[in-house]
Amino acid sequence: MTDQLIIFDTTLRDGEQSPGASMTRDEKLRIARQLERMKVDVIEAGFAAASNGDFEAVRAVAEAIKDSTICSLARANENDIRRAGEAISPANSGRIHTFIATSPIHMEKKLRMSPDQVVEQAVKAIGWARQYTDDVEFSAEDAGRSEIDFLCRIFEEVINAGARTINVPDTVGYNVPEQFAATIRTLIERVPNSDKVVWSVHCHNDLGLAVANSLAAVRAGARQVECTINGLGERAGNASLEEVVMAVRTRRDVFQCDTRIDTTHIVPASKLVSGITGFPVQPNKAIVGANAFAHESGIHQDGVLKHRETYEIMRAEDVGWVANKLVLGKHSGRNAFRSRLQELGIVVESEEQLNHAFARFKELADKKHEIFDEDIQALMSDDGLIVPPEHYRLVSSAFLSETGEVPSAKLTLAVGGKESRVESTGSGPVDAAFKAIEKTVQSGAELLLYSVNAITTGTDAQGEVTVRLSKEGRVVNGQGADTDIIVASAKAYLNALNKLHANQERVNPQI
Amino acid sequence: MTDQLIIFDTTLRDGEQSPGASMTRDEKLRIARQLERMKVDVIEAGFAAASNGDFEAVRAVAEAIKDSTICSLARANENDIRRAGEAISPANSGRIHTFIATSPIHMEKKLRMSPDQVVEQAVKAIGWARQYTDDVEFSAEDAGRSEIDFLCRIFEEVINAGARTINVPDTVGYNVPEQFAATIRTLIERVPNSDKVVWSVHCHNDLGLAVANSLAAVRAGARQVECTINGLGERAGNASLEEVVMAVRTRRDVFQCDTRIDTTHIVPASKLVSGITGFPVQPNKAIVGANAFAHESGIHQDGVLKHRETYEIMRAEDVGWVANKLVLGKHSGRNAFRSRLQELGIVVESEEQLNHAFARFKELADKKHEIFDEDIQALMSDDGLIVPPEHYRLVSSAFLSETGEVPSAKLTLAVGGKESRVESTGSGPVDAAFKAIEKTVQSGAELLLYSVNAITTGTDAQGEVTVRLSKEGRVVNGQGADTDIIVASAKAYLNALNKLHANQERVNPQI
Repeated sequence: MTDQLIIFDTTLRDGEQSPGASMTRDEKLRIARQLERMKVDVIEAGFAAASNGDFEAVRAVAEAIKDSTICSLARANENDIRRAGEAISPANSGRIHTFIATSPIHMEKKLRMSPDQVVEQAVKAIGWARQYTDDVEFSAEDAGRSEIDFLCRIFEEVINAGARTINVPDTVGYNVPEQFAATIRTLIERVPNSDKVVWSVHCHNDLGLAVANSLAAVRAGARQVECTINGLGERAGNASLEEVVMAVRTRRDVFQCDTRIDTTHIVPASKLVSGITGFPVQPNKAIVGANAFAHESGIHQDGVLKHRETYEIMRAEDVGWVANKLVLGKHSGRNAFRSRLQELGIVVESEEQLNHAFARFKELADKKHEIFDEDIQALMSDDGLIVPPEHYRLVSSAFLSETGEVPSAKLTLAVGGKESRVESTGSGPVDAAFKAIEKTVQSGAELLLYSVNAITTGTDAQGEVTVRLSKEGRVVNGQGADTDIIVASAKAYLNALNKLHANQERVNPQI
Repeated sequence: MTDQLIIFDTTLRDGEQSPGASMTRDEKLRIARQLERMKVDVIEAGFAAASNGDFEAVRAVAEAIKDSTICSLARANENDIRRAGEAISPANSGRIHTFIATSPIHMEKKLRMSPDQVVEQAVKAIGWARQYTDDVEFSAEDAGRSEIDFLCRIFEEVINAGARTINVPDTVGYNVPEQFAATIRTLIERVPNSDKVVWSVHCHNDLGLAVANSLAAVRAGARQVECTINGLGERAGNASLEEVVMAVRTRRDVFQCDTRIDTTHIVPASKLVSGITGFPVQPNKAIVGANAFAHESGIHQDGVLKHRETYEIMRAEDVGWVANKLVLGKHSGRNAFRSRLQELGIVVESEEQLNHAFARFKELADKKHEIFDEDIQALMSDDGLIVPPEHYRLVSSAFLSETGEVPSAKLTLAVGGKESRVESTGSGPVDAAFKAIEKTVQSGAELLLYSVNAITTGTDAQGEVTVRLSKEGRVVNGQGADTDIIVASAKAYLNALNKLHANQERVNPQI
């Protein structure tokens, strides 16, 4: 029997901390359901003490998910741990993940604590956490640059205090595989009772080595990898779940362990996370990129290739690459729509909401022949069911653009329920729409990013627009979907303004 | 003194083979100039025998580039090598890179040759290549799955025949770092005269390990890495140049070697390649992703971070992250425009072309307050100067979209110089525009991808649209830029149709 490698997904915590990737509670729930479907062992649902919104999101995930362990991050202080404990309390299986920095530079400059104080605080934190759950994980922040003797000392103490999982993060992504593996090997050899705990790693990708460092650690004895869908995360991100899982599965001969992951859910998970965050997946991304399984020679018969399998080490269908399933069309009924929502993990809370969503579905089906899963997800995420009540809303619009004329937009906007008409010209119809909105709202936000992706293929595809706005140091992403790209753009801009309007304060830890 | 690690860039060969990433001769020239500016040692400019277009592109790069070695790939046959030799003949320093498969599965199924025949063919190939240049590189295709004894044998023979660089590709991306390093170490130890040649690696990223495998090989003695900008390449791509270069530079303590690369040109190179191919760079991509140097905590002051440098192992400015430079505005003159084009490496071949480009620049400056380098590059790549003469062209357009009405487009198109007017409705104005174009052109092409990126920030940014079309097994990308996103979309669609119209046959080798 091969060892089990525990997959700890932190898309909802470290991933969500990426600038521009913040998610609503309901978006987190949708991702959590997909992670559960994939059989992720541990879902880090957030950092409960960051804000009330984060607390509610962790708690909602803990209530909804039954088959995965739900974890909240907490700094090594009593308040953070209490909030984490309360947030995970509804979970079937709940974990508290507490951390404190252990590198000289962090202890001195950030914590302003002596090494003795840091050890004492860590031990206390384990004690506080165990009041809520036996499943306690401890991380030594910036372990990659910490002294090995000090790591051995603090890990010995937290294991004695009852920590069950010991996580070794490479917080700044500075390590290289052989060296990182040597650190893990040394720790496992030197720390007393190291065989009583699961050794975990959390690698950042600043030098492009997060996956390689994680895998090197697995060969050295680590049995939990912390990772994210699409490698999302602070800066260059974390180890990507799909690459870690598929490397271990494809090269079981080398790694001598395997995960419980149902890999056929990988590509849908990647698309879901990309859709929610608005972060595109580059075509040449391993496993989940659009080209990952596409051979130029497979498209263009060039006579060089005689046996296609000669070049394949994985099968596309094993990671969930299937053609878009045509699930619904304009003649589909309410029950078909309802059951498809259920299969997609989208929860509709009342008959009234279902009716509203179904009416919008019918409206889309009138404009678009074939409705794919992605269309439904876009429709629902764009819908009042999933986004919180909107302060700003597009009521109607008219756009005109003609060679030789200045493009113009006429909008009717609802602001806090009150409708007003506004018009503007611009360098293009999108610019005109944004200028018209700003005339009314006067947010003063700066537009950082504007991108559009067709949600499905074909010329009648819905366009999904992502708009990233910055205001007073806050960065938000807005999304909007419509078969009319200008309408989608205006919706995305208003969605971002709604997020800025619902101003939230939070803290973001770095491990 | 530290050893030099030779950087061999194959963006123009393996990168360009990615489905949808094909480039025109002039696009290749622009990238080659940027690679030269970065001080890339060897530029693999293409596979000269693939088609006449590929031959011309390699030759054009060989003529234009002075400071880098220009290389053409060639299968181990006399015709391929002759074409490669002719294509690189104008180069100051030219290399022929010849290859043959050495794994049992490839020799048996693809080549249908015995191992003895393969060795004989390889030795002959080196002889043919040396008629054109002393700088001959040999690759054992699928070395990652070849038998080590056979590799030693064939490498010994090709070294005796005069090969100067021995490349070990992991063609299918199946290797893991320790194992791949062991292969390189064994080869260097066992092959006679191994110290007379440069050992090179070429890793594919199917399991996300291309960079890690390349770096492990460097630690084992490899002194050339084959890589691409943004990790472009077949399937999940190649090792990414920026990650390899920055890992070696940041961790010189571990790698004991360095490259000649001027890293401040990395981000502009990444943007150039992304712009030309239409392949987005995901925000969490190491080094060149938009978030790679962005700390959430840097944006949102959260009190956790006291010393920002605590989290930085590289400086953003060292890899070329600088704010967009405002270079030109509506009052800029013809000379300022001309000299900026020169600085950007864009060659204008006649005064007439310059006048034409300058008129377009003035037109843009009327619509957009600030003109950035990216705007100029988009303008020029969209211009008749850089794209081959257009069979299909947009003369004028009018779009109307209004709540409650069906969106419509009226276009005047020039087809082979003859103008015609056409109109259509659609599910949105972009759909209406594409349908109107198809009414006229009737290409029957399938739309695979539609995406838009703002080239610069601000609401008056130009939108750059990428459209990917498929027809009869061929896949092409079209690009169009305009401040009006609908106009940009129509241009992109026509650009793709122009590429399909200029039908080229070619073969794509896999190493």
